[in-house]
Amino acid sequence: MVTRDWAVLERELREFLPRRSVISKKQELLVYDCDGLTMERKSPPLVVLPETTAEVSRILTCCHKRGISFVARGSGTGLSGGALVEEESLLVVTSRMRKILDVDLANCTITVQPGVINSWVTRAVTGEGFYYAPDPSSQVVCSIGGNVAENSGGVHCVKYGVTSNHVLGIEVVLPDGNIINLGGDLVETSELDLRGVFIGSEGTLGIATSITLRLLRAPEKVAVLLADFQSMEAAGDAVRKVTAAGVVPSGMEIMDNFMINAVNDLFGVDEYPRDAAAVLLIELDGQESEVVSASDQAYELCKASGAREVRCANDQIECARLWKGRKAAFAAVGKISPTYYVQDGVVPRSSLPQVLASISNLSRKYNLPVANVFHAGDGNLHPLILYERDSEYIENRVKDLAADILRLCLQEGGSITGEHGVGSDKRCYLKWMFSDDDLGTMQLVRNAFDPFRCANPGKIFPTPKSCGEFARRKIAINSKDEESQSDLEIF
Amino acid sequence: MVTRDWAVLERELREFLPRRSVISKKQELLVYDCDGLTMERKSPPLVVLPETTAEVSRILTCCHKRGISFVARGSGTGLSGGALVEEESLLVVTSRMRKILDVDLANCTITVQPGVINSWVTRAVTGEGFYYAPDPSSQVVCSIGGNVAENSGGVHCVKYGVTSNHVLGIEVVLPDGNIINLGGDLVETSELDLRGVFIGSEGTLGIATSITLRLLRAPEKVAVLLADFQSMEAAGDAVRKVTAAGVVPSGMEIMDNFMINAVNDLFGVDEYPRDAAAVLLIELDGQESEVVSASDQAYELCKASGAREVRCANDQIECARLWKGRKAAFAAVGKISPTYYVQDGVVPRSSLPQVLASISNLSRKYNLPVANVFHAGDGNLHPLILYERDSEYIENRVKDLAADILRLCLQEGGSITGEHGVGSDKRCYLKWMFSDDDLGTMQLVRNAFDPFRCANPGKIFPTPKSCGEFARRKIAINSKDEESQSDLEIF
Repeated sequence: MVTRDWAVLERELREFLPRRSVISKKQELLVYDCDGLTMERKSPPLVVLPETTAEVSRILTCCHKRGISFVARGSGTGLSGGALVEEESLLVVTSRMRKILDVDLANCTITVQPGVINSWVTRAVTGEGFYYAPDPSSQVVCSIGGNVAENSGGVHCVKYGVTSNHVLGIEVVLPDGNIINLGGDLVETSELDLRGVFIGSEGTLGIATSITLRLLRAPEKVAVLLADFQSMEAAGDAVRKVTAAGVVPSGMEIMDNFMINAVNDLFGVDEYPRDAAAVLLIELDGQESEVVSASDQAYELCKASGAREVRCANDQIECARLWKGRKAAFAAVGKISPTYYVQDGVVPRSSLPQVLASISNLSRKYNLPVANVFHAGDGNLHPLILYERDSEYIENRVKDLAADILRLCLQEGGSITGEHGVGSDKRCYLKWMFSDDDLGTMQLVRNAFDPFRCANPGKIFPTPKSCGEFARRKIAINSKDEESQSDLEIF
Repeated sequence: MVTRDWAVLERELREFLPRRSVISKKQELLVYDCDGLTMERKSPPLVVLPETTAEVSRILTCCHKRGISFVARGSGTGLSGGALVEEESLLVVTSRMRKILDVDLANCTITVQPGVINSWVTRAVTGEGFYYAPDPSSQVVCSIGGNVAENSGGVHCVKYGVTSNHVLGIEVVLPDGNIINLGGDLVETSELDLRGVFIGSEGTLGIATSITLRLLRAPEKVAVLLADFQSMEAAGDAVRKVTAAGVVPSGMEIMDNFMINAVNDLFGVDEYPRDAAAVLLIELDGQESEVVSASDQAYELCKASGAREVRCANDQIECARLWKGRKAAFAAVGKISPTYYVQDGVVPRSSLPQVLASISNLSRKYNLPVANVFHAGDGNLHPLILYERDSEYIENRVKDLAADILRLCLQEGGSITGEHGVGSDKRCYLKWMFSDDDLGTMQLVRNAFDPFRCANPGKIFPTPKSCGEFARRKIAINSKDEESQSDLEIF
C-alpha cells in the first residue's frame, strides 16, 4: 500500500477514535517492532489502541472496506512472531482493553477484555478463594487475548490443561467487522463449537474482544519437592514413576546441569547442587490430606529412581524458595548470553530422556550451548540456544539447530509447538507435521472466518514466499555442512 | 435419487466390500429407522458396514463422485436424530469398526476405531489401573464414534469434562474421501486445532475412523452420599454450598419427587424416601484421605442446607446401591409410560431451583407429567416428559412443552443442549441461541470440510425446509392455546 492510502486510513480512523488511540509517529511505532523472541524487526505503518468492542468493529470495518490487512497484538510477549507486522498491516493493540467486565463466583466465571493481564484475573478473585489456572511464565505481563491467540500453557497445565480448557465463551470481531459469539458462560455449549479452533488461531480468524474464563477454587494446600539426580535418565524415570503411580502433580519441571549452574550464578548462591545432572521440581496441590500423602509418595518414588537428595517444602515461603531458581531460569540464561533462542517442542513423556540426550549431541555438533528447562509432566521441552548476535551465519545455525530439535520431537511422535505457537517462526515446519490435506482443511476453515486473508496475513501457514527463503538458505548451509540434509522436499 | 441410481451405487460398493457389509433388503433396513428418542421413523435406502479406514474412504469417494449424501451411525443410541437418514442418503454404520488399535500406558493414551463401545475402553485398561472418564448413561452400548459426534457427557463430566476434553487425536475421512488427521497423541498440538470443531459436529464434517483418547488413573477411593430434602430449593442450595466450598464431586445428581417414586415403584422397594421433594447424590473420588475429608465436608454442607437424612457409602457394594436408583431412572419412567421425551438443556448452576419451579408450572399448564433427573453439578437438566403416543396433537404438545423448557434455559443464560446434540430435533431452536452471524460462521466452517453438504445433510442448521413445518405447526397450535406465543419471528 502506498503512503497516501495509509494517510487516508489514518484520517478515517481518527474520525471516531480519540487522539491518544492512533499512533503514526515513526519513533513511537518503534515500540511495536519486536516480540519476546523473533530475530527480525519491523515497525508497523500505523497503530491503533481501541478501548471497546464497538471501536474494534469499526476499525476492522474500515480495513475491510479498503482491503487493508491487520494484526492484533496484546502485550507483545509472544515467542513466535504472531503479533509482528510482516506485510503492510494495521497493528491493533488491545492493551487499553483492560476492563474486567463481569465476575460470577456462583458459577465460577469471569469475563474480561482481551488486554487484561493474565495475573490480574487471579488477583481479582483471590480474596474470594478462586484463581485462574493457566500460568505462562510471562503471566505478570502477558494478556488474556494473547493467551487465547496462542493457546498458552504454563507450569500448572500438566494438571489443569491449557488455555482452551479454561475459556467458556469468546466475543469475536470478524475481519469484516461483524461481531459473533463463540460458546457462552457454560462448560457445555451447542454445536458447532468454534471455541477450540479460535483458541490458538494466532489472530488469523479475527480479534477476541471479550473472553469468559472458568475460575477454579484455590487449593487448600500446596507442597513442593525438589529432587536432584546424577543422570537425566534417572530424572525421567522419576517422572514416569510418579505419573504411573497416579499422582497428578500441579507442576513437574526439570532443569539440566547447564541451567542449574546458570541459576546458581545468577543468585550467587548454590540454590541447587552444582554437580547434579538434573533437578526435578514437583508441585502438589489440593486438600491438605491429599497433598501430604501424594507428597510422601512422590518422595519415595524419587528416591526409588535414584534421587540423591529430596527437599520438601510445605509452607508458602519454602515453596517459593524451591521455585525461585526455576522462575529465574530465563533471566539466568539472559545474564550469560543476552541473546538466546527458546525452542518449544513436545514429545511423549516416555521419550524425554532419549530426546534430551539427542539434543545434547546436536548442541555439540553445532557447537552452540543449549540449556534445558522444561515441563516434564507434559513432555513440553524448552531448550534455550545461547548465541552471540554477530553474524547472519550464526543466526542461521541457531535456526537450523532449533529446526533439528523439532525434527527430533516429530520423530518421537511429538509436536513442533506446545504453547508458543507457529506464527512466522515455525510456519516452514508445519509441513513436517501435517499432510497437504490436513493443512488444506485448516486453510479452508481459516477462510470461513477470513475469506480475504486480512487477519494476520502470512502467519501459521507456509507459503512459497515466506518459506522460499528458508529453503534457499538450507541449500546454502547444507553445502557447507559435513552432513547434508536437504529440506527442499518439504516445499 | 431414483431407484436405478441406488442400484448402481450398490453394485459399485459391492465391488470392494464383502457381501456382509452391504445391506439393501427392506426388512433388514428397518433396524436403522430410529434412534434413542426421535419420534419420526424412516429407513435408509442402503446401508454399508465398513471395517477399515480404507473402506470408509472408498465409500465416501463413491458418494462424492456421484453426488450422493451419507449419514454416519454408531450404535444408534443418539437422542436428537443425528444418526437418522432424513433425505435420501447412504447410511454408513461403524459398528464393525471395533478394534482397539493401540494402548500406550506410559503416555496414558488409547487409540480405537469408532465402533468401539464406550465401556470397552475402560475394560481394556482397568487391569492396569486406568479408565476413560466420559460416561454417558448409555455407555455399555454407545460407541466412541458416536460420543465424538455428539460430544457426549455423563455423570463424571462435572469433574472431568466432556468428550472434547479427552480426545487427543482423530483420523477423519472427509466427504470427498480424503483422509486427514486432527491433533495427535499429545495434549498439546499445533495450530489450527480442528479437534474442537469436529467433536460435536454430529457427522456434518466427515467420519472419524480412528480416535486417540486420554486415559486417567482409576481413583484410589470412591464414596457416595445420598441426601434427601423437603424442597428442591434446599437441594439446590446444597449443590451451591458444596461447590462454593471448593469440593469437586465426581458426580452430583438430583432426582425429583416424581422420579423418586418411579424408581421405588420399579424396584418394589423404597430405595429413596417417597415423600422427599428431591434426593441429591454426591460422588467423591480421589486418594483415600482426600475422599474421606471431602465426604465429611459434603455431609455437613448437606445438613446445613436442611437435608433430612444423609446416607454415606464407602465400599463398592454400598456405593452401587445408592447409585442403583439413579441408573435405573430412565427405565423407571419407561415402566410408567413406554413413550417419553427426554429434554436436554443447560442452565447456570445458580439458576437450578427457579428453573425447576418453572418447569413444574409448565408441566401443569400443558397437563403433561414431567420427571426430573439431572446433572446438578453442571446445571445440565434432563426433564422427561411422559405421554401416550395416541395422536399427533399430543406429540406436538410434547414438543411445545419441550421447546418452552429450552426457552427457560436460554432466559437464564443457558444452552439448548448439554450433551445430546442438535441433530434434527433441535435445529429449529438454534436461532434462539445464536445470531445470524454466529450461525453463518458455523456454516462456513462446515463448508470448509464439506462444501457440497453431503455429510449428514439437514442436521444441526435450521433451514426453511426443515423448520417451515415447525413454524406452521406453531401457528396452528397457538391459535388453539389460550396464551398465544408466536414463534414466527424466529424464521
